[in-house]
Amino acid sequence: MEIKDPRNHFSKENGALSGEKTSKTIRKLKDMKGFYEDEEAFNKMDPETVLYEVEMHAPVKAGTEGGLFFGTSFLNPGKVGEEFFMTKGHFHEIINRAEYYWGLEGEGVLVFMDEDGNASAEKVCPGSLHFVPGKIAHRLVNTGDTKLAVGACWPADAGHQYGPIAESGFGVRIKEKNGTIIAE
Amino acid sequence: MEIKDPRNHFSKENGALSGEKTSKTIRKLKDMKGFYEDEEAFNKMDPETVLYEVEMHAPVKAGTEGGLFFGTSFLNPGKVGEEFFMTKGHFHEIINRAEYYWGLEGEGVLVFMDEDGNASAEKVCPGSLHFVPGKIAHRLVNTGDTKLAVGACWPADAGHQYGPIAESGFGVRIKEKNGTIIAE
Repeated sequence: MEIKDPRNHFSKENGALSGEKTSKTIRKLKDMKGFYEDEEAFNKMDPETVLYEVEMHAPVKAGTEGGLFFGTSFLNPGKVGEEFFMTKGHFHEIINRAEYYWGLEGEGVLVFMDEDGNASAEKVCPGSLHFVPGKIAHRLVNTGDTKLAVGACWPADAGHQYGPIAESGFGVRIKEKNGTIIAE
Repeated sequence: MEIKDPRNHFSKENGALSGEKTSKTIRKLKDMKGFYEDEEAFNKMDPETVLYEVEMHAPVKAGTEGGLFFGTSFLNPGKVGEEFFMTKGHFHEIINRAEYYWGLEGEGVLVFMDEDGNASAEKVCPGSLHFVPGKIAHRLVNTGDTKLAVGACWPADAGHQYGPIAESGFGVRIKEKNGTIIAE
């Protein structure tokens, strides 16, 4: 029997994904209107600025029970006013679905929020591992000067709920004030 | 609000796991009686030989719907007769549960088998990514001269069925014959 070459690759250095059934989502500044506190700073920036990209391997259809998806989030360094570039953040549509994140490159923060709006924040760095339990919204923030790359694995039937976050945020923002990274 | 340090670490170089809620399983030669073809060679070896270790992060109870587990398998290099050191291999107890594997260190083979006994095999190397669909048994084999380290993520309610494999194997064995790695 032939021993086949792997159908996909996931760089252990920088998290780049390649091979069959992979795709990329690009989020620009214009996709995140209303997410940042400083609207004046937001409006002065180029709306085409790429904030982050997600590379994803989806070997089964979304919604497949028992299936899994795999991906890497790449957040560019930068700020809108004092607030660091971040992902939209989401609850899962099937609310009890968990997710794993692990840091590959760069420095950042993972923000959690439960359904009652209680938030917490954890540092992300190369070699950090983070479990996001079910019923917890999660957002990545790049607090460094270089690209933040974070691996992820989640159930194929988890889905995404962006609505609640777009409307009321995480209750906490990750900013730089007087050279210090703070959550407030 | 305080930005906490990560509670767990997962080395991007070698897959070592540490932090809260991690554990290690060690599999020795004596735990794998009947798995290898060459019983004479098996019986001549030290039964305390460590074949592989699995480090695992289990942040929720086994059986939790929507939860996930995370781990690294470390297979030592070696052979029983012509057959390379390998994991027991398993179907999931909830048979439709999938799993991801990704190569971190060393060289190996991932063997798949469906419920009808049809097998296939794929090379594992640093940077390879492998999706194991539901209903597919899977086994790792170290075909190199150094430790094989492979990351994994799977549903917390997947469970393991070792029985069918212990009884009838994978229908294919990964061996070295005349200096060549073969699946037969």
